[in-house]
Amino acid sequence: MTSTAAGIAFRDRLLEHGVLVSSGVPGLYGRSGAFEEVVDGIERYVTRMGRADGPEVLRFPPILNRSHMARSGYLNSFPQLAGSVHSFDGGAAEHKELMHHLDVGEEWADALPPTDVALTPAACYPVYPIAAGMLPEGGRLFDVMSYCFRHEPSTDPARMQSFRQREYVRLGTPDDVRAFRDLWLERSQMMLSSLGLQVKADLANDAFFGKRGRMLAASQRDQSLKFEILAPVADAEALTAIASCNYHLDHLSGAFGVYTAPNEFAHTACVGFGLERITLALFAAHGLCVDEWPAEVLGILGVDTAPAPQERTMSVS
Amino acid sequence: MTSTAAGIAFRDRLLEHGVLVSSGVPGLYGRSGAFEEVVDGIERYVTRMGRADGPEVLRFPPILNRSHMARSGYLNSFPQLAGSVHSFDGGAAEHKELMHHLDVGEEWADALPPTDVALTPAACYPVYPIAAGMLPEGGRLFDVMSYCFRHEPSTDPARMQSFRQREYVRLGTPDDVRAFRDLWLERSQMMLSSLGLQVKADLANDAFFGKRGRMLAASQRDQSLKFEILAPVADAEALTAIASCNYHLDHLSGAFGVYTAPNEFAHTACVGFGLERITLALFAAHGLCVDEWPAEVLGILGVDTAPAPQERTMSVS
Repeated sequence: MTSTAAGIAFRDRLLEHGVLVSSGVPGLYGRSGAFEEVVDGIERYVTRMGRADGPEVLRFPPILNRSHMARSGYLNSFPQLAGSVHSFDGGAAEHKELMHHLDVGEEWADALPPTDVALTPAACYPVYPIAAGMLPEGGRLFDVMSYCFRHEPSTDPARMQSFRQREYVRLGTPDDVRAFRDLWLERSQMMLSSLGLQVKADLANDAFFGKRGRMLAASQRDQSLKFEILAPVADAEALTAIASCNYHLDHLSGAFGVYTAPNEFAHTACVGFGLERITLALFAAHGLCVDEWPAEVLGILGVDTAPAPQERTMSVS
Repeated sequence: MTSTAAGIAFRDRLLEHGVLVSSGVPGLYGRSGAFEEVVDGIERYVTRMGRADGPEVLRFPPILNRSHMARSGYLNSFPQLAGSVHSFDGGAAEHKELMHHLDVGEEWADALPPTDVALTPAACYPVYPIAAGMLPEGGRLFDVMSYCFRHEPSTDPARMQSFRQREYVRLGTPDDVRAFRDLWLERSQMMLSSLGLQVKADLANDAFFGKRGRMLAASQRDQSLKFEILAPVADAEALTAIASCNYHLDHLSGAFGVYTAPNEFAHTACVGFGLERITLALFAAHGLCVDEWPAEVLGILGVDTAPAPQERTMSVS
């Protein structure tokens, strides 16, 4: 990961070629049709590789129940990244005041109260409250996706504030969950290598907040709980995490009450594919014109580069 | 639209069949794999029907530049629906206080300052700043999609807080833009009828805020600026808007500086397809098992109901 000159240069190339479109806010972009076709192709590949395991498929909106964010421990570990959704609930007088702030160019949202929702920090967070209670024999396996939010404005195009994670999430006994983690640690490297990316796996830790966070990070490393799959994106020298395999022990099942037996919390793990980061790694590796990517890569992604009717006939006007 | 007994009954059937999954917050749901396959099918149909017009394809994340929301006039017209994103920017002492609020079960977000972003209210909002400046000859046409947020918690499954809009957006001369609106008013009814929905088009108005809002709504109707395509969803008697055609005159191009000639603001219009609402209308019309829908409807959507390998082999454990 880098937010250096190489990051800025890659971002500017993506903007010039219209692969991404600037919103004026660092880390927030529109995506071109070509970008999205690659994202769709990665999703199909992830589906294919996990289908035989029979996951329960769920897709989530980009916001979650505020109380679930609180219960997850996210605000303890990552308060600086969380997004809270606030809204106006006043009458005519308060609205007049809001409009006055706008008219004179002042911030208009300071006084807005929180709603019942917050921005989803990772695609698997909504799963744990859904799985609360006793797991069936053999545990559960979910295939999930959602837009996620992290408040970390950056010039590095691989560090977006709003991005998608596709995840498989396993809940079960420690043995089952470790086996899942080990399987996907291998499988994800194989998949990403097959797309022509120079990947390597490495032990990692999350960016926990504050002094206590440094201890949490050290403990996470000591217990080998987080592995990242890294690849070059903006900078061939400084690698970026494009996928990760995370073993949560009973942290999340304890918070939401997920059990394998009476008084026995389940263990949980997830493998997460960063859809924007993998897409950017592919653009970095194979160039900004998807048509010119290696046929083998396009074949795996199922991206059809046959010319579609793109002429601007403007039959509407 | 209804948030009556019929709405609650339909929501409960969707939850029982696992088509939607409760988050505990009204209007916020997980979506099943089957639900998403229908959404994907609707998107493919919308793509097919608009492709010959040669749109520029963009996809947006669920948040937008806060200053663009302010400039759009949305907070003037719909402050009660807007979502503002706030985040923690304190140090160790403020974090301790935040954790104390959490520990004693108090609201933790009251003091969080606004970030540079807000939740996207409609899929076309990010387009206008991108198109700012002089339009090319013939104007521009965009194909956009994003998750949208509206703060209106409801028991009616068709009134979600977080939902997707797919839109075509036309920017150009008044004649071009009116022709676009008229074309899609016909085309969208034909498309939705072909999916077996009992649709009708009707003049409509937005839910503008407050006393001034009632005048805006009346003026919008007087000028025939908004048409909705309605269909039965929860309630066969009370119809729900599943798509709309909106003519903005120069409201948005004026706010963002989009011109067809020097000192001549462009006009703009959009057709929006409510992807969740159309999907729910299809579930209401054809039943909760997608496999059993009419072959013609499945054919148009391109949904393949051949049995996929769904057995729970659990090769991972």
